[in-house]
Amino acid sequence: MSGKGEKEFVKEITPRSEDYSQWYVDVILKAELMDYAPIKGCMVIRPYGYTIWEYLQSFLDKRIKETGHQNAYFPLFIPQGLLQKEAEHVEGFAPEVAWVTKGGQEELAEPLAIRPTSEAIICSMYSRWIQSWRDLPVLINQWCSVVRWEKSTRPFLRTSEFLWQEGHTCHRSEEEAEEEVLKMLGEYKKFIENEMAIPVLTGQKSEREKFAGALRTYTVEALMSDGRALQSGTSHNLGQHFAQVFDITYLDQDDQLKYVWQTSWGVSSRLIGALIMVHGDDRGLVIPPRIAPVQTVMVPILTKKDREAVLQKAEELSRELSQHLRLKVDDRDEYSAGWKYNEWEMKGVPLRLELGPKDLQREQVIAVRRDTGEKEEVPFSSLMERIPGLLEEIQSDLFEAARRFQEENTFYMEDYGEFKQHIENNRGYVKAPWCGKLECEEKIKDDTRATIRCIYTWEVSQGEQCLYCGEEASCKVYLAHAY
Amino acid sequence: MSGKGEKEFVKEITPRSEDYSQWYVDVILKAELMDYAPIKGCMVIRPYGYTIWEYLQSFLDKRIKETGHQNAYFPLFIPQGLLQKEAEHVEGFAPEVAWVTKGGQEELAEPLAIRPTSEAIICSMYSRWIQSWRDLPVLINQWCSVVRWEKSTRPFLRTSEFLWQEGHTCHRSEEEAEEEVLKMLGEYKKFIENEMAIPVLTGQKSEREKFAGALRTYTVEALMSDGRALQSGTSHNLGQHFAQVFDITYLDQDDQLKYVWQTSWGVSSRLIGALIMVHGDDRGLVIPPRIAPVQTVMVPILTKKDREAVLQKAEELSRELSQHLRLKVDDRDEYSAGWKYNEWEMKGVPLRLELGPKDLQREQVIAVRRDTGEKEEVPFSSLMERIPGLLEEIQSDLFEAARRFQEENTFYMEDYGEFKQHIENNRGYVKAPWCGKLECEEKIKDDTRATIRCIYTWEVSQGEQCLYCGEEASCKVYLAHAY
Repeated sequence: MSGKGEKEFVKEITPRSEDYSQWYVDVILKAELMDYAPIKGCMVIRPYGYTIWEYLQSFLDKRIKETGHQNAYFPLFIPQGLLQKEAEHVEGFAPEVAWVTKGGQEELAEPLAIRPTSEAIICSMYSRWIQSWRDLPVLINQWCSVVRWEKSTRPFLRTSEFLWQEGHTCHRSEEEAEEEVLKMLGEYKKFIENEMAIPVLTGQKSEREKFAGALRTYTVEALMSDGRALQSGTSHNLGQHFAQVFDITYLDQDDQLKYVWQTSWGVSSRLIGALIMVHGDDRGLVIPPRIAPVQTVMVPILTKKDREAVLQKAEELSRELSQHLRLKVDDRDEYSAGWKYNEWEMKGVPLRLELGPKDLQREQVIAVRRDTGEKEEVPFSSLMERIPGLLEEIQSDLFEAARRFQEENTFYMEDYGEFKQHIENNRGYVKAPWCGKLECEEKIKDDTRATIRCIYTWEVSQGEQCLYCGEEASCKVYLAHAY
Repeated sequence: MSGKGEKEFVKEITPRSEDYSQWYVDVILKAELMDYAPIKGCMVIRPYGYTIWEYLQSFLDKRIKETGHQNAYFPLFIPQGLLQKEAEHVEGFAPEVAWVTKGGQEELAEPLAIRPTSEAIICSMYSRWIQSWRDLPVLINQWCSVVRWEKSTRPFLRTSEFLWQEGHTCHRSEEEAEEEVLKMLGEYKKFIENEMAIPVLTGQKSEREKFAGALRTYTVEALMSDGRALQSGTSHNLGQHFAQVFDITYLDQDDQLKYVWQTSWGVSSRLIGALIMVHGDDRGLVIPPRIAPVQTVMVPILTKKDREAVLQKAEELSRELSQHLRLKVDDRDEYSAGWKYNEWEMKGVPLRLELGPKDLQREQVIAVRRDTGEKEEVPFSSLMERIPGLLEEIQSDLFEAARRFQEENTFYMEDYGEFKQHIENNRGYVKAPWCGKLECEEKIKDDTRATIRCIYTWEVSQGEQCLYCGEEASCKVYLAHAY
């Protein structure tokens, strides 16, 4: 069936070893996850990419609700005056804010920021809504897009506009707020590991890397297949900074007026970038079954002679299978079976079922795994059991492979010379003791471009010394080159 | 349990007969559907209102997908040059566009519109994505917020920012596009009638009222309880206007390069306004069961003596009922039963179950309908059957009541004098023949403030005359005062 009338073959994808950045962009464009928009740094999330986002959303939204939160919608706009109320916050975000200065034909009296994050607008509402201890906790989440006018952008990882969820909560005590922050960090970890098959580290950000205006920021970090780390979600203990600035107080049971304790936490469409870079290979995307728009593709192999019989069987099997999984039958006439194999591999469909005249005779399909390429003959009689089982195996094997990669690319070091040499020549994480001083953190970055991804423990033995300055260590950190 | 420590009683809601607009705002604020944001014309959709939106979304999204569409996400920004490409389109939207002129610290070379609707940005992408007849049809939908800088605003009905979905499709022929336009109009009608229990009219908009840039606009119109009509959804046949301007062509099977035929269609968070005004009454909201965040509230009546027994039974029943419906048990100690009844009525919960010591003895609950106030004793033994049944009855009775109201407030008229007098003193629709001339449409509006809501038929008998000018009629229309 190949030859005339067939679309040009799936174009080559640049191998990762040759140019990782180009590989990333090739995969994204060819799999039609997104396209560049005619606005600097903005992208269009195409249906195939958006469907993945919808699965991510639905898994996470369920957990956000099961942990007691409700969704709401706050305005896109934040008046300049509101954004400027919290000094650290505005300093952190001002350089990347897009400003609306005209509405219709009129100049606005006060410019409006397009939300880079919604603390300011949400806090201004919370100060009206919260009066009494009875109103607490407030547990609200929002799904929306935010805008950060980034200088250098990269699809999904850093774009001027991106999709995310942002949780914003208020509590009666610091302990309760901290509990919330860690609970949601844990939810992110579970969600990314279980649904996306991506192992993650969790830990606390350094002062330098924390959210502008927060007391403490916790992070979820994932290791891409080029050995660079990607911050994949954050959870902030905001303390009472915003409460004081926005006057969010409540009358407690002891008749005292008190400031609330706040948190905020978010993950974004950047997760799709992580998905591509953790699981993808030189043939394209590899999507874990739980979040795959198409979990299994069936390709009937159509010869002149047996065409009708094969198509009929494909239809029959697909009717049954579709009740258990997201199946697509690719019976297009314009493309050869080989072309279809390539296309669906490039699109990352976890499992392919081939059904040809010989298979019909043998009452079986050939199942081919996207991740390993392994082939398996599956009798028609055990299809409904085996295919879902295979998808589960793929899901856990993908996680396990990524976990092993992370493990094999994590080293513990105490000597700065060794570290410098290692990080220049190797990918992955380095664990090391740190004194906690900004100066050392910045020196390390200047020297090596590696950054502290997170503090993973505050437990340090006597005599352990900072990787950089040799003074007494106060904690241990993960370092890596990062996106 | 009333008295000290109890929050102030649910405040009075202005009766509809006294001041309908004030009633509308009272209901919205007291039921915590939304709050005013500190930005002109913008609102915050609070969790209770947003949950209704989520139910609307999930019902409609399911149908959008079942009819073959996929979701995607296009940028918030539209470069000025793109927006200006289609002349009618820009003329229609320019007066209400918010403009971003600054990104970070820099003035932008070209101002960016915040999307008032996404035809321009989407068409610019379609012209890249569509090459061949094989690429058609393109069936894409987007859920997002849009911004229209409105001079006078009203919560949910007309706000500077609102939530909506916008479908954008491309087809090979005019017939196929028209079929799509009418199909989605039909989906809107079914969705609004079945899920929201709101009867609607469908028909074509006049030239004056059609979408800026469209060939034809179809509309879904609902009648509010003050007798004013509300445009509740639109479906546009865009013809080839945008395709020509944005150069969206495809190579057809006959090797000819042709322009695609396009449609767009949308409904918005305005539907929540319709919900309030169609079903609400002087005690507050009435929410149809299918889209109610809480479908049934159970209020245990707690006396000192039987407190534990009643609470235990409430918990037992709620465990079972929760498997069949969205149930809330209101066992708060700080409020009296009476206070709770008022609050949940105001919030529009369709059904209340009262459970006191006497009910415990009689092995029953008292079910009270929000819409009619009818009480019914329901034995514990038939609860799982009767409560879902009652909710279904409420759903269909709400629709029937609204349908009857619409029927009773629709009149056919041919005499302009009679019409003028009628429309000044009565609410509702007037059906009338029309010649189709803009002049008559505008004269009627100037005279009476009534507008043509839609053309419901092109079938006119010989001799039927335009309501205004008396010349030969070309169609028949619905007229009404409208929001």
